[in-house]
Formats: sequence, C-alpha cells, structure tokens
Amino acid sequence: MSVVRIELPHCTYDVLIEPGALTRLGEVVRACAPHKRCGLLADPAVAQPWGELARQSLVRAGYGVAQVALEPGEKHKTLAAVERIYGALAEARLERRSPLIALGGGVTGDTVGFVAATWLRGVPFVQCPTTLLAMVDASVGGKVGVNLPAGKNLVGAFYQPVAVVIDPRVLGTLPARELGCGLAESIKHGVLGDPALLDLIERRMSELRGRDPQALAELVHRNVVVKAGVVMRDERESGERAHLNLGHTFAHAIEATMGYGELLHGEAVGLGLIAAAELAHRTGLCGAPLVARLRALVAAAGLPLTAALPDDEVLWAAMQRDKKVADDRLRFVLPEREGRVRMRDDLSRADVSAAWRAIRA
Amino acid sequence: MSVVRIELPHCTYDVLIEPGALTRLGEVVRACAPHKRCGLLADPAVAQPWGELARQSLVRAGYGVAQVALEPGEKHKTLAAVERIYGALAEARLERRSPLIALGGGVTGDTVGFVAATWLRGVPFVQCPTTLLAMVDASVGGKVGVNLPAGKNLVGAFYQPVAVVIDPRVLGTLPARELGCGLAESIKHGVLGDPALLDLIERRMSELRGRDPQALAELVHRNVVVKAGVVMRDERESGERAHLNLGHTFAHAIEATMGYGELLHGEAVGLGLIAAAELAHRTGLCGAPLVARLRALVAAAGLPLTAALPDDEVLWAAMQRDKKVADDRLRFVLPEREGRVRMRDDLSRADVSAAWRAIRA
Repeated sequence: MSVVRIELPHCTYDVLIEPGALTRLGEVVRACAPHKRCGLLADPAVAQPWGELARQSLVRAGYGVAQVALEPGEKHKTLAAVERIYGALAEARLERRSPLIALGGGVTGDTVGFVAATWLRGVPFVQCPTTLLAMVDASVGGKVGVNLPAGKNLVGAFYQPVAVVIDPRVLGTLPARELGCGLAESIKHGVLGDPALLDLIERRMSELRGRDPQALAELVHRNVVVKAGVVMRDERESGERAHLNLGHTFAHAIEATMGYGELLHGEAVGLGLIAAAELAHRTGLCGAPLVARLRALVAAAGLPLTAALPDDEVLWAAMQRDKKVADDRLRFVLPEREGRVRMRDDLSRADVSAAWRAIRA
Repeated sequence: MSVVRIELPHCTYDVLIEPGALTRLGEVVRACAPHKRCGLLADPAVAQPWGELARQSLVRAGYGVAQVALEPGEKHKTLAAVERIYGALAEARLERRSPLIALGGGVTGDTVGFVAATWLRGVPFVQCPTTLLAMVDASVGGKVGVNLPAGKNLVGAFYQPVAVVIDPRVLGTLPARELGCGLAESIKHGVLGDPALLDLIERRMSELRGRDPQALAELVHRNVVVKAGVVMRDERESGERAHLNLGHTFAHAIEATMGYGELLHGEAVGLGLIAAAELAHRTGLCGAPLVARLRALVAAAGLPLTAALPDDEVLWAAMQRDKKVADDRLRFVLPEREGRVRMRDDLSRADVSAAWRAIRA
C-alpha cells in the first residue's frame, strides 16, 4: 500500500494507492467525513462492477448512499450538468457535512469537485479516479471546474478533496485508448520534473499497456509524487504550478477547435507535448534528441503523432481565447531537458505555426 | 473617513466607509488589484449617477472598463444570470488578474461575488454596496452565491473581496422601503453583539430615515465592526458565525413560500426577528420586554410587523429544506438578552407554530 500525503497551508489529505482500495472506501471516507448520508456520483461506464463495490463499502461503513448517475464524456462537463446534480442533491436532502464521492474519470472528478466546492458553499469531497489519466493528474491538485462554450475550464475553483482513493484494479477494464491518455500525462510529468519517470515508462511500457498491477501502481505513485510536489509548492498557480500546463496550450486549442470528444484529452496532450518540444527546439531551448525521445515515447504509448488540424488562423484564435493568456501575450511551457521546463511568452507566430505543422496530418 | 480592517488567516482587506468614496474607487482598486482591464458589473438602478461616477474613477486610474448590466432583483440571483455574466466576461476577454467590481445591492454582490469566485477559478473581487442592507451585511464576510428553485443560497462559496468601498452618499437615492431593510439587519446585529447599536438606532432613527450622512456613516461603521468581529472569529460558520442567522430560519421560509420579491429580504428578516424573540420568550430564554423592544424597533424602522403567511405545513416544509438543517434537526438562533444569542435545536413544532402566529396577518 502506498500513501502520499498532500500538505497545503490550509489542509492536509492523503492519496491512497492500493489494489482493492475501493472495498475500503467506506472506512476511509468515515475517517475524514463522518456523516449518516453521502452522495456517490458515478460515471455509468464504471458503475458495474466498481460503483456497486464502492456503494457496498459505503453502506457497510454506515452511510445512507444517494446515488447520482452522471452523463459520460467531456461534452457533459458543463454548467447544465452541474445544475442537474445540484437538483439531485437537493432532492436527496444532502447536508453540509454529507460527503460527495466522485467515481469516474477526469470529467467526473472535475464536475463533481466543482459541485462539492459550491453546493451549500462547500462540502467534503472524495475522489475515486477510475482512469489512468485521472489517477495521475486530475485527482491531485484541487483544480475543479467545467467548460463554457467559449473555452475549456473557464469556470471552476481550487478545492481540495478530503481524501483520494486509487484502486489500480479498475484499470483492468479501461479501454486501451484511455490508458494511452494517462501515459501522455505521465510522460509530461517525467519531462517537467522526474527523469526517472521517463525511464520507467520506457522500460516497462509493455507491462503498463498489459495492465500489470504492480507496474501501474508504481507509475501512479511516481506521478502523484511529482504532481503533489508541484502543487504543495504552488497551490494557486502563481508560479511553478503553471509548469503542469506543458503541452496544454496546444492541447486546449486542439480540443477547442476539433470539438471536445473528437480526440481524447490525453491524445491532445500527447500531440501538445510534441509541438512544445518542436517549438523549444526551434527556438534553441532544447536539442533534437529530446524531441525524438518524446516522439518515440508518445508513439510507444499508442498515441497519435499527428491530427487533421484546422488552419493556423483558427488555432491561433483558440490559443488567444485560452485562459493562460496573461496581458494579451501567449505563454508557453517548453521543455529544456529531461526534468526541466521553462516559461516563454516571447515566441513568434511563425515559430508557433511551425510547431503546429509538426503535428498536422 | 473610517476604515475597518478584516484580518482572516489567509487574507486581509479593508472596508472603506466615506462620503465620496466612489470617486476614489479607481485608486483603491489599483492599490490592491492592478491590471489594465477590469469588469464593472452594476445594477442598472444605480448606474446613474453612481455607475458613471465609478466608471470615470476607474478610467482615471488607468483601467479599460468592461461594463456588464445585471438584471435587478432577487429573482435574477440565479445560475442563469451567472452563466450570462460568464459569457460577457469571455466576450470582454477579461483575464485572471482583471478585477471584477460589483456595484449594487446584496443580489448584485452575491451574484458577482460567486462569478468572481468561479470565473477562471477565482479573480480579484471588489464590493461597492449601494443599499444599506448590503453595506451593513452582505459586503462583509465573503458569503457569495445564488438561489436554486429548491432554496435560497444553496449554491455558493466563501470568497473574500480584495476591498470594500462604501459611499454613504448613494443612500440618498435609496427607496425608503429598502432603507428599512438595512435597519432590520442593523437591529439584528445589535441584538446578537452590540447593545449600543440598538441604542444608536433608537436615538437617531429619525436622522437615519432622513438620510443624515453622519448618522448613516456611524450606523454602517458599527455594523461592519460587529459583523467583522464575528467573521474574523469564525469565517466558515463552524460556530459563532451561525449567530448571524438570527431571524433567518424564519425569514428564508417566508421568502421561499411567499416568492422571492413579494417581501424584501430585510422585511422578512424584521419579521423573523420578531418571530425569533417570540420563540425565545415562549421557551423561557428571554423576557417580554426584549420582545416588546424589538417589535418597537422594527415598527420604528417602517418595517411590517405581520405578513399574509401561508399555512404552518407549508412553512414547516420550507424550514426543513433550508440549508441550516443539521442532521435533520432545525436549528434556531434565539435572543437571550441585548447583545447575546443562543443556538437551540430542541424546539417543539407547537412553539414554532406559535412564533409564526405572532407575525401572521
């Protein structure tokens, strides 16, 4: 069993990583958010068998469980979904001390987290991520929120869970394409803060893609440690936390212009990593071998290396709308070498266009 | 000029109370949230002349001002209004460091505050309350949020402003009925924490209702000190802050059943104060003179002493739905003597019904 403790100025919580952890969910929740009722908000795709396992564990721990089924997919990460959930919580008469448990992928965690941050001005929130992407990324850090028609994650909050429970067994039923998305964020974490994580992914790629539980547990643990370190040093993204956006200025523009759901988020991130490396290389920040290594890692993870991108004009406009624009200048996080990145806001449109060309099908 | 400093564990900000303060708004905002753009979100009822005064001050301080007109009234304190504002902010390309300034009454402050708490995961927020109610109550404490069909303030956050700017001059154009609402919350603050505030209101009632600027400034100052004290000791309402709900379990049920907007919030609070005092007296917590004094104060403020309430069943159900239900028990804040209240959750339905009778027309 592995526990990573997240210590922030105003709160502390544990990330528990353990095969079989879901069967202990009830006792974990009771230890940090005791109450007689709770809400279990699950993506129907994971409701069987994992949702039922979670529900039974909560019932054994003495909770009356109000279940709310979420609509799956990024296109339902909306204010409309949030409003529907508020209605269900009011209907179920959940109170200020009733914890809300999110069981699902990143969309579930982000949406339910935003509901938990705002329902009755904030209630206890427990994350049970069921995709590799959510385990290595969204489950740590407290960023919650939903999309607007004008852009991704424009509405949200910083809201920390009281516990994160990760059961690597659930990855056994995860589609291969979604496993690849988690690997994309893992590669990102390696590039920005842990060269040994890149080595691990290269060395054990076949075990990881074969769902070896030990390899996956080690992968998740290393990722959580990298991300937790960044978040503990900079919860509100005033500085270092922005490094986690490596590849994301490209990825968000890809998703915004190609439609959420066309490519999966992790696939867009994989493309964004390559584009960021190309841009870094083109501006003299890193050498060609790093670009080649990243491209090989993305390919080995089964992720696309190119996509049928729209025209430059369209992508440029989408990047301008992205919330990481500061004082009208586009800011990019670019790789310098394995384990080290740098912020740049002085890049020419020609360089950015060249980076887009490198991943255009 | 009077400045009340609010010191919380994670932030500090000033409440500035000064005739003419609005003309200095720009420099105040620049001192705590410098940026090249800001959003000025105003209730159209105060846009002339106060909105224009505020806008000019912000322009003089170097801000590009994106103006957003809000729909007035409690019935627009909704998620739909919030969504419309998000759209306007996206359109105006406001960024993470662009402050949002709320100019209006409590509905404006609560709604814009919730937008500020959640837009781009939180942006700087400045309160310019323009009603007496908002000056003495909503502008201090960081409670922001909107209503749902299922109940009042069910969605929200604790989100502190970076500054509060109060210009008592704006009360010169405030309708008399709304002035009375501010007096209701002032009476509440006197009962729960400052007997001298009750004396002040009794002694200077005619000056207050005649909009004497000095009397109003003194009133606002004393109220802000009472509320700030409570909030500084208990920001998240784990204990003492609940005292601020004096009269509100009744008031919220009145508003929920008679429809938001039928009675003004402060009018419902005035009725709630009388009901709470009756309930306290009936259960032996306070004597008859306190009940009589509160009734006289509410009457002298020009507030209604009774209303055409619905049946007990309907009111009871509405109280059950209110978010202050803890573990299915209704909790009331009741006056014990001037300056002191007590929490009670052991009251019989018969006693509560008698309290309702005391204010039923």
